Amino acid sequence: MLAFTVKNHRLVPARKPLPKLRPGWALLQLRLAGICNTDVEILRGYHGFRGTPGHEFVGEVVDVRGVSARERARWLGRRVVGEINIACAALGFRPVCRFCRRGLKTHCARRKVLGIVAHDGAFAEFLALPLENLHAVPERVSDEQAVFTEPLAAACQILAQLPVARFRDAAVLGDGKLAQLIARVLHSAGPRVTLFGKHETKLALARLAGIPTQKVRGDASDLRRIKESFPLVVEATGSPTGLTLAQQITEPRGTLVLKSTFHGAAPVETWPTVVKELTIVGSRCGPFAKALALLRSGRVNPTPLISRTFPLAEAPAAIACAQKSGVMKVLLKMD
Amino acid sequence: MLAFTVKNHRLVPARKPLPKLRPGWALLQLRLAGICNTDVEILRGYHGFRGTPGHEFVGEVVDVRGVSARERARWLGRRVVGEINIACAALGFRPVCRFCRRGLKTHCARRKVLGIVAHDGAFAEFLALPLENLHAVPERVSDEQAVFTEPLAAACQILAQLPVARFRDAAVLGDGKLAQLIARVLHSAGPRVTLFGKHETKLALARLAGIPTQKVRGDASDLRRIKESFPLVVEATGSPTGLTLAQQITEPRGTLVLKSTFHGAAPVETWPTVVKELTIVGSRCGPFAKALALLRSGRVNPTPLISRTFPLAEAPAAIACAQKSGVMKVLLKMD
Repeated sequence: MLAFTVKNHRLVPARKPLPKLRPGWALLQLRLAGICNTDVEILRGYHGFRGTPGHEFVGEVVDVRGVSARERARWLGRRVVGEINIACAALGFRPVCRFCRRGLKTHCARRKVLGIVAHDGAFAEFLALPLENLHAVPERVSDEQAVFTEPLAAACQILAQLPVARFRDAAVLGDGKLAQLIARVLHSAGPRVTLFGKHETKLALARLAGIPTQKVRGDASDLRRIKESFPLVVEATGSPTGLTLAQQITEPRGTLVLKSTFHGAAPVETWPTVVKELTIVGSRCGPFAKALALLRSGRVNPTPLISRTFPLAEAPAAIACAQKSGVMKVLLKMD
Repeated sequence: MLAFTVKNHRLVPARKPLPKLRPGWALLQLRLAGICNTDVEILRGYHGFRGTPGHEFVGEVVDVRGVSARERARWLGRRVVGEINIACAALGFRPVCRFCRRGLKTHCARRKVLGIVAHDGAFAEFLALPLENLHAVPERVSDEQAVFTEPLAAACQILAQLPVARFRDAAVLGDGKLAQLIARVLHSAGPRVTLFGKHETKLALARLAGIPTQKVRGDASDLRRIKESFPLVVEATGSPTGLTLAQQITEPRGTLVLKSTFHGAAPVETWPTVVKELTIVGSRCGPFAKALALLRSGRVNPTPLISRTFPLAEAPAAIACAQKSGVMKVLLKMD
């Protein structure tokens, strides 16, 4: 099969054998893959990952290993999306780790992560995942919507961590792909959401979804100018400087959700968190079922965020495009 | 009266008139005052404070204004400690701010803070506070114990914010005055507490209180060497570098309490908070009643933390002493 791998900070094509299946695993033929900022970070050396990147996808089950005939029939031919953390049990470890024992598979101490940690991902014609990671895509959800399930689930993780409906107002810092999804998810859950961002064209996308916006410069002048404060603030700028503004616009005893996973140390003063007794909640992967339900209901439609679609063979051009200013989601389409 | 004020980063003596009392306020004659790291920060210019510092004290009520004869009789001659945040109502503001309306007086939008923000403090013979801020000191609590009520209450704030008894293990980072009190308070509340610090003599003080310790160097070598993790970690090093180690030793989905209020930006990588989905809780002033109850019961005895006591007239020498390596709590005694 055709697969792209990371070599000297570039994506290079390779002919690879199909991945081998453990019992309880499925082989998926990919239809669409999404490019995420994490993929760009991986090209820069994040995690030292050397395999095939890509963790946002929609595909079709074409083989299943080591399950009953009935289970096999249930999955074969299914259009699916997949959770990216592969935990103890699926990797064959017994006994499972203390996090798996508590049901926290996304925090499994031995986990591999699709396209990020020690497991080949979706910039390829095929990938392998445990059946326990798969979710069937409802018929009325298109491929172009379904490919957003993973980042939308990450946005939905905030709903799983906090009683979001109890907040009257919320702010989302950032106007990138993840920030846009987070703003839509919070908006669907009750609070009045304001999105703060630097790019007029991206702010316009949020307003089209009914979300008021405020333009910021991303420098110290914002700290002088912005006087409002919010009980709930989500930092999703993907930039080290976001936390300072986020602390400022979170009101005393408020909640600040951290979503940005950029690498590199940012000089941050933490005393506002102490003096205002803020609660900062780190938030990562989330519930696929909730994300699929939002897509199915039509309450969140991510497709206006698609900037461009490339054939898989043009993955290097696609990832270059994804890094250009003003570009939102870039997709890879497999034939 | 004799009072010390901040001038050109030094404490200088001054003769001041007695503070005037608003209705509902009391005049206190001071008996003992404690020197806190915040006082040292104030000398360095923190908050631009120019009055009399000092916010840890025990004193005696010598005058009360604008209350019933019965209320007056109840307070006159009482030995008291006092909460340091002076909120809307006591300052004469009507209507009160939205934080006071919610009962969050420590977050009052207009608050003055004893010896820290716009209100003269305890490095003096007398000070003024609203009666609503005062707590009578139980007879069996000595002056030397009572002067710790304010920082001990700050340690107890963690008990008010988190269900501490549900944690089996906890770590406290830091071996200074506040870290020592926090370790004792957590230890009294249930968890097995380990205190991490740099100074052997300070670690020995914690062990005398029954708290196991681990020595750290306060540099990157700690990150390589320390492999344990804890569900509850309190960062009280007072140093910008503490947060990096604190994030490392907090287990996935664990809780990290921030107590350090140093000023200045520290380069911090925040991705571990996101990847491990930590909850970071900023924690400041706390419940005086709980602190007094702990002192009264004998479950926490802070007096071994006293390094030296100076007469008020020697306040500049006292604050110099408080900054010396290995020195814990320094007190000022009024005659």
